[in-house]
Amino acid sequence: MSNKPNRTELYELGEFRLIDRLTEPFKPTLPETIMGAGDDAAVISIGDESCLVVTTDLLLEGIHFDLTYFPLKHLGYKAIVVNLSDVYAMNATPTQVTVSIGISKRFCVEDLDELYAGIKLACERYHVDLVGGDTSSSMTGLTISVTAIGKAKMADITYRSGAKINDLICVTGNFGAAYMGLQLLEREKRIFESNQAAKPQLEGYDYILERILKPEARRGAVEMLARAKIKPTSMIDVSDGLSSELLHICKNSNVGCRVYMEKIPIDEQTAKMANEFGIDPYTAALNGGEDYELLFTVPLSEFQAVDGMEGIRIIGHIVEPKLGAFLVPPSGEEIRLTAQGWNALRNGQ
Amino acid sequence: MSNKPNRTELYELGEFRLIDRLTEPFKPTLPETIMGAGDDAAVISIGDESCLVVTTDLLLEGIHFDLTYFPLKHLGYKAIVVNLSDVYAMNATPTQVTVSIGISKRFCVEDLDELYAGIKLACERYHVDLVGGDTSSSMTGLTISVTAIGKAKMADITYRSGAKINDLICVTGNFGAAYMGLQLLEREKRIFESNQAAKPQLEGYDYILERILKPEARRGAVEMLARAKIKPTSMIDVSDGLSSELLHICKNSNVGCRVYMEKIPIDEQTAKMANEFGIDPYTAALNGGEDYELLFTVPLSEFQAVDGMEGIRIIGHIVEPKLGAFLVPPSGEEIRLTAQGWNALRNGQ
Repeated sequence: MSNKPNRTELYELGEFRLIDRLTEPFKPTLPETIMGAGDDAAVISIGDESCLVVTTDLLLEGIHFDLTYFPLKHLGYKAIVVNLSDVYAMNATPTQVTVSIGISKRFCVEDLDELYAGIKLACERYHVDLVGGDTSSSMTGLTISVTAIGKAKMADITYRSGAKINDLICVTGNFGAAYMGLQLLEREKRIFESNQAAKPQLEGYDYILERILKPEARRGAVEMLARAKIKPTSMIDVSDGLSSELLHICKNSNVGCRVYMEKIPIDEQTAKMANEFGIDPYTAALNGGEDYELLFTVPLSEFQAVDGMEGIRIIGHIVEPKLGAFLVPPSGEEIRLTAQGWNALRNGQ
Repeated sequence: MSNKPNRTELYELGEFRLIDRLTEPFKPTLPETIMGAGDDAAVISIGDESCLVVTTDLLLEGIHFDLTYFPLKHLGYKAIVVNLSDVYAMNATPTQVTVSIGISKRFCVEDLDELYAGIKLACERYHVDLVGGDTSSSMTGLTISVTAIGKAKMADITYRSGAKINDLICVTGNFGAAYMGLQLLEREKRIFESNQAAKPQLEGYDYILERILKPEARRGAVEMLARAKIKPTSMIDVSDGLSSELLHICKNSNVGCRVYMEKIPIDEQTAKMANEFGIDPYTAALNGGEDYELLFTVPLSEFQAVDGMEGIRIIGHIVEPKLGAFLVPPSGEEIRLTAQGWNALRNGQ
């Protein structure tokens, strides 16, 4: 397995090119498969006007979470929410989830009770049914695999591919908070490991901690847009960093973009923590990831409608593809957007 | 996490009681959730007469497969097939799958090409579309999580709960083959580990090896029953051992059963290998698991129709609940069926 004569390491391709390579041979063959791999969720027709969306996420101990500071109840909640975020990004309503877990002997029944209490809380808050799963032993850490199903009218589905030139680029909430919350937790963990008497210094940072430990999906924004009868031309959820998701929209829609740096919403705690760490808060916002905000585009004609919407910010606009995808700082040269993301494949063992 | 004052170990509950405990608080709340956890697949209504079924399985390295003898292409194929088997067990037609993988650095791109070649082959053979998934790095071994979706008319769905007194108990194929194939592979692995010059002795056992390394789902049987206009009163796929699945049918249908030992189909290679290992072939058949055959019940009035069907055997009948679930040997006392299965939770670390 590991002694191939022509061995290509995973990091040589990177996550996105690897996914493209693996899924490229799989073209939908059934008429009801409207969208296969390549968006936030698959779209399956269930009649003339309606469809289901299906999305799945894998959470692995040591990669996606560290149980030294991640409470199991929060983890259960988050495992559901990150999947629902993908459903909302399709402009659909989540309805069911399945949850599979792989567990090692170091967990006891009471641990799983906590994990499932978090899962239950998320299911109740978002009105989804848990309809099954799989339970297995694991040789090592905790594995959680969630699949979420949602429903929508076919005409309401928003893909990554629909952004048009001159569309406004909008976002919900703010960015970089989860990333800075994670840096804080990791710092306090290191301090505790070198001095077990040390108490974690987390005061004043409850918001960024909540963003990493107990994120919410942007149901409110999706419902608000529906009430205002605005259908985004494209939409994606921001899990790998705003920069990376902007590039997904640009690539799938075959367009370019201009994003104005000072328009990117950043919370005060995020900026403060970034400052403590000597990190540019815009770097955290663009490349941090795990924000679970929505990034979407609307026609320029909707400017007045979205401009004043609570929790929504216009951060830029779509341009011709030949103009590329750039960040515009308040002064100085435009900066080409890059998909840094979390290069998770480089860090694994 | 591990130092709870009231710590209940996972093996104290066992897999089935653990699943019951974890899923019990989750009752369906949406009208379209027809069946939640507790059968081979969830059932979601998509209109007056139609429904989707959804099922998911987790495959973890070191628990479900050993890559020292499991070719990656076969593993990809099997990961799909074991999920489709659950869809067929609902009397539904599989349509889409999602595949998530967690991979460590010891895998290269070419390894994943092989895994996905097997996934593609299974998708082609069973006419299902791969519609998405998730790709993550892993700190340790290979993790594969597959979700399968299928469709059916609501009236055609077969649950575990529909068996009636006097119904005939039927099975497809034969039992214990995958288990004996696994014993053979494990034996040859141990021999190879103690003497690297040893060549594996696998000749004459191609059938049982194929049953563990490249199982098929029983599409043919489901189609044959449909053509004969026979709807089973209950159905389940045999993944944890025939005995365990018989008990699921009995529990969910609130009935008992009598299964005639000599009627249980066992392949010649299975019997021969069991003999070599000093294992009773009926123990392998009843408790081995991973058979991916279908176990189903039909009304007694269908006796003539199913009796001659190719690849289908009648192995017993359903009785009143107070009579319990027993195996009837050719001579001597009846033996109470027990759900031994693979107690995977005891073996994990």
